[in-house]
Amino acid sequence: MQQIFNEIKIKTKGQGLYDFTNQTTSWLNKQKINNGILNINILHTSASLVIQENADPDVLYDLKNFFDKLAPMDNKLYKHTTEGKDDMPAHIKSALTNNQISLSIKDKELLLGTWQGLYLFEHRLESHTRTLIHHYIGD
Amino acid sequence: MQQIFNEIKIKTKGQGLYDFTNQTTSWLNKQKINNGILNINILHTSASLVIQENADPDVLYDLKNFFDKLAPMDNKLYKHTTEGKDDMPAHIKSALTNNQISLSIKDKELLLGTWQGLYLFEHRLESHTRTLIHHYIGD
Amino acid sequence: MQQIFNEIKIKTKGQGLYDFTNQTTSWLNKQKINNGILNINILHTSASLVIQENADPDVLYDLKNFFDKLAPMDNKLYKHTTEGKDDMPAHIKSALTNNQISLSIKDKELLLGTWQGLYLFEHRLESHTRTLIHHYIGD
Repeated sequence: MQQIFNEIKIKTKGQGLYDFTNQTTSWLNKQKINNGILNINILHTSASLVIQENADPDVLYDLKNFFDKLAPMDNKLYKHTTEGKDDMPAHIKSALTNNQISLSIKDKELLLGTWQGLYLFEHRLESHTRTLIHHYIGD
Repeated sequence: MQQIFNEIKIKTKGQGLYDFTNQTTSWLNKQKINNGILNINILHTSASLVIQENADPDVLYDLKNFFDKLAPMDNKLYKHTTEGKDDMPAHIKSALTNNQISLSIKDKELLLGTWQGLYLFEHRLESHTRTLIHHYIGD
Repeated sequence: MQQIFNEIKIKTKGQGLYDFTNQTTSWLNKQKINNGILNINILHTSASLVIQENADPDVLYDLKNFFDKLAPMDNKLYKHTTEGKDDMPAHIKSALTNNQISLSIKDKELLLGTWQGLYLFEHRLESHTRTLIHHYIGD
């Protein structure tokens, strides 16, 4: 059994979905691995992870728009307002999606569907540098 | 350490929750395993995975109904409409639930609660054949 | 490779978020482990798991409040009403959050962000004793 850790930094420029599939697979391709699990964690509670369609950019637009309507940036709705009108909605959107994803690797290949991409979902209005842990466990 | 992969196909007949607990446990029972993790991934972004109550079918009805109201099949709400009125809501419902679940196996037994079942949540109106990866890692 | 299992019981007193980070880390600190994955499962479908901000208690209040509005305790909305007005909303809230979280451990340390805490999200009105499985796999 071997384990490999890698910290990936992603710079975001406000709300939206950022595709990091290539960063993950290009890192994996450099490792001497065969079969195992890749556990990806985002170390924040105002940005999250989703696996989504990688074909039509309109899907990403509609996703962002849906979550904005579901958890509006309106201070009157929340007690937690000290960090800005976008912060509490960001925590809610994070709870509704994922902080963590476990993916399988078989014969050196990440098992994703044809139309699946890995996305960081930034929920804050300002630019941020987000930290993602990549942890491989396998042989 | 051993790892075993298995691809399961599930045929769906429109929207709803499909219990695949028996498919998972009957496959596990045929393997020579003891303790480990079972990582289940669905390779689609318009169907998803949930662990839900396996007792009252009304729970499954209400779940489907809740998500339909939350993300209505109304083309006026979305930019991504080329794949049908049910496609963008399907991506949203997928983002709100899970693409992936990691379960624990102890002494050959899948650790689920008494009332927990494994469900594929189909979000499209038409019939589909859905692919689920079962990946066991353990001893 | 070694695997360690531990069952944690958490007593809840009605709806809300219960921080169990210390229970997890104090258990981990007693184990002779180095690097691995900690898979946490909750064996219920009316309570769930979330990773959320551990700084401002108002975040927890707003989260509970958001989910209560999203899935109201109103029997007219649901077919499944036999277990009380809070039961079907509890199943919905569970589907919208997580039954399971996989965390990474590196050099004996649980990899969480500075502001991340582990929470049990109780969705029922009455007190309950909830069972969480902690399953460590690593070296």
